[in-house]
Amino acid sequence: MAVSSARGMRDFPPRDKQRREQLLGIIRETYARHGFEEIETPAIEDLERLHSGLGGDNEKLSFAILKRGLSAEDLRHAGAPEDLADLGLRFDLTVPLARFYASNHAVLPPVFRAFHTGPVWRAERPQKGRYRQFVQCDIDILGEASPLAEVEVILATADALHRLGVTGYTFRVNDRRLLTAFLSAAGIAPEFHGDALITLDKLDKIGSEGVLTELVERLPAGFDRGVLAAVLSGESIALDPAAISQVMGGSPEAVAAARELCDWAMVVAEVLGPEILVVDPTLVRGMGYYTSSIVEIAHPDMGISLGGGGRYDGMIGRFLGTDVP
Amino acid sequence: MAVSSARGMRDFPPRDKQRREQLLGIIRETYARHGFEEIETPAIEDLERLHSGLGGDNEKLSFAILKRGLSAEDLRHAGAPEDLADLGLRFDLTVPLARFYASNHAVLPPVFRAFHTGPVWRAERPQKGRYRQFVQCDIDILGEASPLAEVEVILATADALHRLGVTGYTFRVNDRRLLTAFLSAAGIAPEFHGDALITLDKLDKIGSEGVLTELVERLPAGFDRGVLAAVLSGESIALDPAAISQVMGGSPEAVAAARELCDWAMVVAEVLGPEILVVDPTLVRGMGYYTSSIVEIAHPDMGISLGGGGRYDGMIGRFLGTDVP
Repeated sequence: MAVSSARGMRDFPPRDKQRREQLLGIIRETYARHGFEEIETPAIEDLERLHSGLGGDNEKLSFAILKRGLSAEDLRHAGAPEDLADLGLRFDLTVPLARFYASNHAVLPPVFRAFHTGPVWRAERPQKGRYRQFVQCDIDILGEASPLAEVEVILATADALHRLGVTGYTFRVNDRRLLTAFLSAAGIAPEFHGDALITLDKLDKIGSEGVLTELVERLPAGFDRGVLAAVLSGESIALDPAAISQVMGGSPEAVAAARELCDWAMVVAEVLGPEILVVDPTLVRGMGYYTSSIVEIAHPDMGISLGGGGRYDGMIGRFLGTDVP
Repeated sequence: MAVSSARGMRDFPPRDKQRREQLLGIIRETYARHGFEEIETPAIEDLERLHSGLGGDNEKLSFAILKRGLSAEDLRHAGAPEDLADLGLRFDLTVPLARFYASNHAVLPPVFRAFHTGPVWRAERPQKGRYRQFVQCDIDILGEASPLAEVEVILATADALHRLGVTGYTFRVNDRRLLTAFLSAAGIAPEFHGDALITLDKLDKIGSEGVLTELVERLPAGFDRGVLAAVLSGESIALDPAAISQVMGGSPEAVAAARELCDWAMVVAEVLGPEILVVDPTLVRGMGYYTSSIVEIAHPDMGISLGGGGRYDGMIGRFLGTDVP
């Protein structure tokens, strides 16, 4: 029998484990200082909840747990593998947090600053830097509708990164409503926005030419390549509502969203310095639960983002979530 | 959709989580002081390994993870549920530790003091005080054949309990070889020892009369009820090789095992005081991997044990493991 850990998962011998606990200790202390309170949720959630549409593409990656006590008869009558599973391993901490908040809000303060850490599991092909079990550290503010939430979460994250000794990163920021606005301005009907965003999200991999080519393939003809080309140009945009809304198509919706984005981003830029914020009109961050602000932490030395999040004002309240490494 | 956590699992709101982390911090610090080094292993192991016979009855309680990408065809051809699963959630930390050691021993010291903490999962009916996900904190000494291992693990555990503010508990100690010796002395053939120990393990629930009745039902006639009655009497035995081996049937094997048990137990009693150690000839601790010493931490206020362990000198080395709350 093989003695290595299961495929795509890691052991941590003492030296690595000690380092891991030290870093987690720094993160825990920093977030506590910023008023975030730690919670814990179980690793297992009902599969129905994990597949409820809150998790975007990651839902497909959930490990499903076989029902107990199944008979040969049950197997024969199962139409699909999902019929045989009732529980699953969480693929992120956001779905469990939403469930936690709904379940426990009576004992929580009206504006609740949550710090949530723990392993998550994704049934994806293991590759360099990506594991099938890894730890997420999330902070979220629940019950805060104002852009104060964005500012607080980003400043606390920057403080944690500073104490961890991470330098040279940038916060790439965008707003889901700006994405919608520029797609509409380019003449793409709302029912094709989902397809268009999936393609746009591949910009890193296939480049702007590749994105345009794929959009032509996937979308009905007649959209305006000019608006798309401006967004895809990769030129940075100043943190200025007029400049942003112009690139994003100039519609009233774009103007309103650009103003809201600049409202909180300018406060962050004032505290942390303007060079740490990059308005990235191509930032998509999956197709999941985000409703307005989205943020991703990028580092020039790393092929993957250090974390990210966004505002997800959903059924159970208003949220903003950020993962840090 | 229900918003409570999955059946048999718990959320920890901030106050509970903070208390949990404080306690874990105390345990971590205590074990570090005793030279134990912390490791981490993944929550998921290959199912084949979890079902390899190392885990005793707990193997049956492992949550099995559905293979990915199964077709309707695969379901029809599966003879049993296990054919559809390739991974499982660990039901304890001992099997993962054994796998970890086998995989990583080249980078570990010859005598390795391991501290291993993390969630484990058991697919059992949830009931008061028992959850389907709970945290274990194990310390183990690997590569130490002498009874020094028993002494060190118990003293470190007692120190941790002391720092956690736990008082009034006892270490109940026994040796698997004493169990075998008294069953043989009672005229029970080795092939029935497994059955007899499963029955003996129910002493807490069904009492000594119940155990004797069940033994009569399960075993071939002709065994000596006198030897069994002496063991089942519930009278405490002095920490003295002669007294122990006499109750346990008096065979040369009983004498040797009693002497080895007293060797290390007397050192512990000298340090911690004699009243903390109780020789319990009926202690079985499952049917799993233990080969000699077994220990359980009992508290008069609690219906379940606070933890336990034993020596399991198996294929990959010599081990002694103890869980503490």
